[in-house]
Amino acid sequence: MKNKTSTMPSLKLRRVAIDTYKENVAYLHRDCLLYRTEGFQALSKIEIHRIGNGNPVIAVLNIVDDEIITAPDQLGLSEQVFQQLNLAEGTEVFISHASPPSSLKSVHLKIAGERLSYDAYHKIIQDIVNNRYSKIEITAFLVGCAESGMERDEILSLTRAMVNTGERLDWGEDLVSDKHCIGGIPGNRTTMLIVPIVAAHGMLIPKTSSRAITSPAGTADTMEVLANVNQSQQKLRKMVHQQRAFIVWGGTANLAPADDILIAVERPLSMDSTGQMVASILSKKVAAGATHLLIDIPIGKTAKVRNSTEGQKLRKTFQYVGDKIGLHIEVVLTNGSQPIGRGIGPVLETIDVMKVLENDPEAPHDLREKSLQLAGRIIEFDFDVRGGQGYEIARDILESGRALEKMNAIINSQGRNLVLPELGKLQHQIVASKDGFIEAIDNLKIARIARLAGAPMDKSAGIYLNKKVGDNVKKGEVLFTIYAQFNADFKFAIAAADKEPSYSIQSELNHD
Amino acid sequence: MKNKTSTMPSLKLRRVAIDTYKENVAYLHRDCLLYRTEGFQALSKIEIHRIGNGNPVIAVLNIVDDEIITAPDQLGLSEQVFQQLNLAEGTEVFISHASPPSSLKSVHLKIAGERLSYDAYHKIIQDIVNNRYSKIEITAFLVGCAESGMERDEILSLTRAMVNTGERLDWGEDLVSDKHCIGGIPGNRTTMLIVPIVAAHGMLIPKTSSRAITSPAGTADTMEVLANVNQSQQKLRKMVHQQRAFIVWGGTANLAPADDILIAVERPLSMDSTGQMVASILSKKVAAGATHLLIDIPIGKTAKVRNSTEGQKLRKTFQYVGDKIGLHIEVVLTNGSQPIGRGIGPVLETIDVMKVLENDPEAPHDLREKSLQLAGRIIEFDFDVRGGQGYEIARDILESGRALEKMNAIINSQGRNLVLPELGKLQHQIVASKDGFIEAIDNLKIARIARLAGAPMDKSAGIYLNKKVGDNVKKGEVLFTIYAQFNADFKFAIAAADKEPSYSIQSELNHD
Repeated sequence: MKNKTSTMPSLKLRRVAIDTYKENVAYLHRDCLLYRTEGFQALSKIEIHRIGNGNPVIAVLNIVDDEIITAPDQLGLSEQVFQQLNLAEGTEVFISHASPPSSLKSVHLKIAGERLSYDAYHKIIQDIVNNRYSKIEITAFLVGCAESGMERDEILSLTRAMVNTGERLDWGEDLVSDKHCIGGIPGNRTTMLIVPIVAAHGMLIPKTSSRAITSPAGTADTMEVLANVNQSQQKLRKMVHQQRAFIVWGGTANLAPADDILIAVERPLSMDSTGQMVASILSKKVAAGATHLLIDIPIGKTAKVRNSTEGQKLRKTFQYVGDKIGLHIEVVLTNGSQPIGRGIGPVLETIDVMKVLENDPEAPHDLREKSLQLAGRIIEFDFDVRGGQGYEIARDILESGRALEKMNAIINSQGRNLVLPELGKLQHQIVASKDGFIEAIDNLKIARIARLAGAPMDKSAGIYLNKKVGDNVKKGEVLFTIYAQFNADFKFAIAAADKEPSYSIQSELNHD
Repeated sequence: MKNKTSTMPSLKLRRVAIDTYKENVAYLHRDCLLYRTEGFQALSKIEIHRIGNGNPVIAVLNIVDDEIITAPDQLGLSEQVFQQLNLAEGTEVFISHASPPSSLKSVHLKIAGERLSYDAYHKIIQDIVNNRYSKIEITAFLVGCAESGMERDEILSLTRAMVNTGERLDWGEDLVSDKHCIGGIPGNRTTMLIVPIVAAHGMLIPKTSSRAITSPAGTADTMEVLANVNQSQQKLRKMVHQQRAFIVWGGTANLAPADDILIAVERPLSMDSTGQMVASILSKKVAAGATHLLIDIPIGKTAKVRNSTEGQKLRKTFQYVGDKIGLHIEVVLTNGSQPIGRGIGPVLETIDVMKVLENDPEAPHDLREKSLQLAGRIIEFDFDVRGGQGYEIARDILESGRALEKMNAIINSQGRNLVLPELGKLQHQIVASKDGFIEAIDNLKIARIARLAGAPMDKSAGIYLNKKVGDNVKKGEVLFTIYAQFNADFKFAIAAADKEPSYSIQSELNHD
């Protein structure tokens, strides 16, 4: 490489303010001498060399015909590459053709159906974290894993590799509890109840949560209605000592960074293979310092897991990888036949959560019960708690007001939002087309309508479920209410709600 | 969709002079109201709607922070999308979230190992041709096909789908001959000999060739040394009548356009699955109007096909698909143990070709013999030629000077280059390290060195093989010569040649 770069003309760095999201893209002018003589092509990968030392940075090439973006003597870099290279604009760099990352051979083996070793997974994940893979190559890896499937040992290897290529938090305690739900159920905001209950019991539960990707709200989106969810590492350590808990967004720490890059491809592709899901969840938890983890797998016709056979299989995989990697795991299969609580969308969910904490008689019973069950299971991780006693301890904490007190302390510590956003001013009610009782509510359809209404970007948007499964209903009675802030969102959500019913109503006649 | 777009603010089209090569990319400013309220994300796909009628165009979104590239009230479009939409800058358009193409469901089924119908392949290829697939989705399709493999019927379906989603030429004759080599052998420029021989026999052989993708020269690159290879459809029809032949670049016609898009992903990924290769070759040939096709499969340790078992399997697949699609196919397994001829790179290969045509005693014997063999097989497609007579007819045509005459007529008709490029002025000789005989020459290494020297972008660059397999050699004698035009290329090629020997020399001692 030295022979090559030392004789090639240099290019001046130019920052191009384009966010290419998790893919390194560089821009070269079509009249650049190097483009013509070196046979670079659009989409080919190049290495960018600093003068002197340092590893080259890899980027995919786009060709530019406008000097306003990149001039013939410049090398344009999208935001992410520019930050990675960390040099001033105008700095001279050299470029050369990039060889494919050596770990790509293992990807081809995986595509051919072979089983990969830990070493192979580690090299692949290392290259991905170092931005040596293009989106095309990452897709090949993911599809290769999805198609021939991953043995349990491979899922373990992938999990380990993802933990080992990022930072790892250590809270200095033997029992660090955590919980995770595999998702898919709107309104399922149990974390904001479990964390204060468990922390009020005195256990450590440092909770890093995600924002919504395809759902109407993630825990971080909803918690953000009440408090600041972006916290420094230093602040998190202080909260652990003072409150035994926090509820923050996990995206700022460099925990299992490969996971975020893989998700950037999985999301647009709607890929959700078991191996990737298990490795994604467990690597984040281990990196976040958890020692004991409760996993919630909702089962239902419109949930991610459709039946308990699938759920049991997934449970075993979680347990296998957890045991090998030193994470104590309990898996609970829960009822995923309809949304949990009544509110869907950040503000509406916050209202539900606060009602439960305040022991309001109007609080949604299902959210309260599920949260107490799960909190009880986590409390039983406590070596001093007898099996079966967790639920009662959790209920006592909630009913005594200690959970509310703890939640307020957490909110104050993270920084309370003094002005809460109001509910969306545009409201529309969807009513029953006939008499009967509610037989089912479709999680997917309800989530879609809430997103169309604006959740989670618009915190005040979402859905309130006036009726839930088992309720009786008369023709013309309200089933659910759509809330929105913007007219366009509002109309689109109503159109979607009108198009396909998300409630199934069974006539009383057939009921008996 | 109407509900949505009619209430959303419009954006003004802006052309962004970035060539994103076969992928539609649109740019939105981070401060654009739509970006914030609609929850668009980088890498998410959007639909671009014209006011009034017309199908929406799909593009992948990049987010921009610089008004020089795209302002908050604009929608930036990379070159390819801009051309596709075919509207003036400043035109108002609407955008909305794009649903995944419906054919993506079939891709997920293929990844899960299922067999797809013709209908499924047709819908996938149609969506790919209409730029509804992102690079990520195309990769998922290719890896899915590579991994679970494709049944012969599926390869047939894919071939048909690729033909039916592009233009198809019809030469109005019952016998339209063509040839194709699956590639991998440097210097293998038989086409430029076969075409004039076959045309001199009076048969129709309208030859569309490719440019090099990973090799030091494609036939179109080498023919371009002598004549213009970019011709209009009208001109091609005229040449067919006057010369019975042409040798042009096939990239201008819209033949099996899906193939070019798939190759844009296969190339950086180094994917080359049998199913994709067969469909790619045969769809192009059928679309180009061929009725009779000769396929050259070189077999050798450093060729694409390593042994004759593999070669036979590939032959059967070609035959199966050819028969079903109505293309008469003959497959010849040839010797791929070393490069063909002496020159590698456009100018050096042209010299070899002209020497053979001129019956120069210095002409490379192997190139001459192979071309006569293959031309003979094509001549036997002629209903009036007895089996086994083709070779002699071809030899007569070559030795009589009629092949040279026909080649000159073809060159003149396409437009002769009056000034031929000279050989690269930088020259370096690689010499033998010991006495012995040449046991093998590595096709892959020789190709790589020739590309590093500048071929095919630099037509005068390449390699001349002074020794070939079986030749005796003394220590210090020249094995091959590197030619280059640019100093950087020259040094890099020499470094690669020095690093790993591409010639294996066997000592005389062990020879007997």
